[in-house]
Amino acid sequence: MSERNQPAPSVGIIGGGQLARMAQQAAIPLGVDLRVFAKSGTESAALVSAGVRLGDERSVGDLTDFAKTCDVLTFDHEHVPQPVLRALVDSGAAVRPGPDALRYAQDKLLMRRRAEELGAPCPRWRELPAGPDAAAELAAFAAETGWPVVLKAARGGYDGKGVWVADGPDSAAEVIRGAAAADVPLLVEERVGFTRELAVQVARSPYGQVAAYPVVETVQRDGICHEVLAPAPGLDDDTAVAAQRLAIDIAHELDVVGMLAVELFETPGGVLVNELAMRPHNSGHWSMDGAVTGQFEQHLRAVLDLPLGSPRTTAPATVMANVLGGTDPDVFSRYIHVMAKDPELKVHFYGKEVRPGRKIGHVTVSGDDHRDLLARARDAAAYLKGDL
Amino acid sequence: MSERNQPAPSVGIIGGGQLARMAQQAAIPLGVDLRVFAKSGTESAALVSAGVRLGDERSVGDLTDFAKTCDVLTFDHEHVPQPVLRALVDSGAAVRPGPDALRYAQDKLLMRRRAEELGAPCPRWRELPAGPDAAAELAAFAAETGWPVVLKAARGGYDGKGVWVADGPDSAAEVIRGAAAADVPLLVEERVGFTRELAVQVARSPYGQVAAYPVVETVQRDGICHEVLAPAPGLDDDTAVAAQRLAIDIAHELDVVGMLAVELFETPGGVLVNELAMRPHNSGHWSMDGAVTGQFEQHLRAVLDLPLGSPRTTAPATVMANVLGGTDPDVFSRYIHVMAKDPELKVHFYGKEVRPGRKIGHVTVSGDDHRDLLARARDAAAYLKGDL
Repeated sequence: MSERNQPAPSVGIIGGGQLARMAQQAAIPLGVDLRVFAKSGTESAALVSAGVRLGDERSVGDLTDFAKTCDVLTFDHEHVPQPVLRALVDSGAAVRPGPDALRYAQDKLLMRRRAEELGAPCPRWRELPAGPDAAAELAAFAAETGWPVVLKAARGGYDGKGVWVADGPDSAAEVIRGAAAADVPLLVEERVGFTRELAVQVARSPYGQVAAYPVVETVQRDGICHEVLAPAPGLDDDTAVAAQRLAIDIAHELDVVGMLAVELFETPGGVLVNELAMRPHNSGHWSMDGAVTGQFEQHLRAVLDLPLGSPRTTAPATVMANVLGGTDPDVFSRYIHVMAKDPELKVHFYGKEVRPGRKIGHVTVSGDDHRDLLARARDAAAYLKGDL
Repeated sequence: MSERNQPAPSVGIIGGGQLARMAQQAAIPLGVDLRVFAKSGTESAALVSAGVRLGDERSVGDLTDFAKTCDVLTFDHEHVPQPVLRALVDSGAAVRPGPDALRYAQDKLLMRRRAEELGAPCPRWRELPAGPDAAAELAAFAAETGWPVVLKAARGGYDGKGVWVADGPDSAAEVIRGAAAADVPLLVEERVGFTRELAVQVARSPYGQVAAYPVVETVQRDGICHEVLAPAPGLDDDTAVAAQRLAIDIAHELDVVGMLAVELFETPGGVLVNELAMRPHNSGHWSMDGAVTGQFEQHLRAVLDLPLGSPRTTAPATVMANVLGGTDPDVFSRYIHVMAKDPELKVHFYGKEVRPGRKIGHVTVSGDDHRDLLARARDAAAYLKGDL
C-alpha cells in the first residue's frame, strides 16, 4: 500500500482505459483508493491516477503482486483469461465479479446456453461445429430463420472483429474459414427484426443488494454504441419492469458483483437478450450526469460490498452521444464552440490519442425533451469530431 | 509537460488541499491536465493525481519551474505571497486570478478600503494604528458601535487565528498586544446584528464572461462553515438579485478570474460584505451535486478562458454539511450506516488524516424541502464524525 492518511478502502482495477478513468473520478469523492493496473503510463486512466502499476494483464505473477496492494480487484474490461482469474482467486484475492460470473461475459456460447437454462428470452441460435460440418449446420439453421444471419465468435474474435452479418452461404463460408484458421468457435444467431435496441443496468453487491437503473434506448452504428436516450422514450411500464426483472434475475443467477449491463432487442413479441457486460458500460454513461448515483460510483460501492446508491434520475430525460475521433486531432480547439453554444452540455474526454472512428469521449445533456436533447448532443459530438 | 496523447490544456494548481483534489475530479471529464504543486505526497490532492510536483510555495524558483509545465496557474488557497505572485507574472506565467486581484483576498484592510470605494455595503470598520494609540482608537470606535466588536488581522493572522470577538477593552487589549508582538496590522469592525449569513458565488473569465450562482445561506459555527442551504430559503428576489449584482460588480472591478465567493451578512437594512475568497469555496460545494456546472469545473473553465457552464440548479433544494473529524479516525467503518440509511446522500471525503474538529469531507443531498434535507445531511455528518 502507498502511504495513506487513514485506512481507506482500496480497489484495484485491471485495465487503464476510459472505464477505469471514470472510476477514478468516482473514487475521489468516496475517498476510495483506486489503484490502476495498466499496460502503459499513457493509458486513459493512468494519466489521472497516482501510483499506477504497469504490467501484463495475462501474467499471474504481475496480477497477484498487484492484488496484494488492494482490498478488492475489479475490471476495466473482460479480457483477463479464466486461468489467470482463477489463480488470483486461489491466491486469496477478492475478484469482483468473480471468474464464475465473468465467463458468461467472456464466452458467448456459455452465455447463450445459460440464458436459455434460465428461461431468458434469446434470439434463435445454434453452435456451429468445428470442421467441415459447419457450413451444413449453418445452412440448416438459415433454412429455419432465413437470411441474413449473424455469426459470432464465441470468445475474443479475431482481426479485431467478433460479429459478422452473413447475407448468404458464400459470405458465411468466408467467416467460417477465417474462424477455423484462427481456431475460434462460432455460433450463429437469427438476425432479429427489432423495433429498437434497449439496455438495462443493475448493480449487485456480494451481500445480494440490487439497484436497477431505468431501461434506456441505445442507438448503434457500425457495431458501436452511438447514442443513449434515458429513460427509453415511450417504453411501456410492463416492458420496462420485465427488462429490469430479467437483469436482476441474470445478476442473481450468475452471481454478478458490480455493474451488469444487459443489451436487449425490443421486438413486437417482447425483449430478447443480445449481450451481457459485467462492468460499467457505455449504455450507462448517462447516469454520471443524469442519476443520483452514477454507474462508476455504484460499481465501486458494489465491489466493496457497501450499500448501493439511489439510481433515481435527476431529470426527466438525459441523452448521451459518443464522441469519435476525426481527422483533426486538436479536439480542444473545438471546446470553445460547444461550450459557448450549449452551456448545459457536459463533456467527458478520455485523454486518448485521437484516431478516426475511435471513441475519445462522450457528451451528455439533461432536460425535458429527448428530441431536443438528442439534437444538442449530436451537434456537440459532431462538432468535437470535426464534422461540422 | 508529462507525456500526453494530445495537446490537452494544462492547469497548475498551487496547493494540494481538498480544493485541488475536487478540481482534479472536475479536470478528469474535461480532459484538462491538472498539475498539483503540493508540500507533500500525502496532501489531499496529491493522493489522487499523477505527476504531482513537490515544492515550497514561497519559493520563486520552485514555482517558476512549475509554471513552465502549465498553460495557466491557479490556487488551492490564498497564501502565496505577493512578491512571489509578481515574480511569476514577470516570468511570463498566466496567473489566474492575478496578484492585483488576489491582494484583496489576502489583505482585509485593502479589501475594506476598495469595497468602500466601490460603494459596496460593509459593516462599519476602522484601521487600528500600530503602537500605543491602538487602544484609544478602538475605544473611540466602540463608543460609536457598542461592544462587542470584531478584531481582524489584516493579513495572515497568527497562532492560527485571524478573527477575534472582543467583549470589552480588556479582551481587546489582549488581542492588540498579541498582534503587535506578531507584527500583524489589525482592523476593527462592528459586530453586525445579522439575520443570517449568506454567500454568493460568481465565475469570471479573462474574456469578461460572468456566471452567477444562486445566493445560498451559510451556517457558521466556531468560525467554520458548517452547513449550506442552496438556494437560500425564503430569500426575496430583490435581495438575491442585489447580492448577485454586488458579486458581479466586485468581480469586474477587481478583475477577478475564476470563482469569487462573497460572504454576506443579511440584515434588516440589506446585505453587508463580510469576506471575499477568490477560489472555489466551501459555500459552493453544494454545486458539485446540485448544479449543472459545479464550482470546480467552472473555475477550470474560467481560468482557461473557456465559455462558462450553466450555474442552473438541478433540484429545488440542495443542502451541504461539512464532515469534521472526531476522536475515532476510522471514518470508513461508518460508511455502511450512512449509505444504507440514505441512498440519495453524496459523500465527499478529502483523504485527510482525521483530527478532531478538522474538515475531512462534506455531504450533500438534493430534493424539495430544505428542512428535510438539512436533517438528513446533519445526521450523516454527525454519524461520520462519530457523534451518533
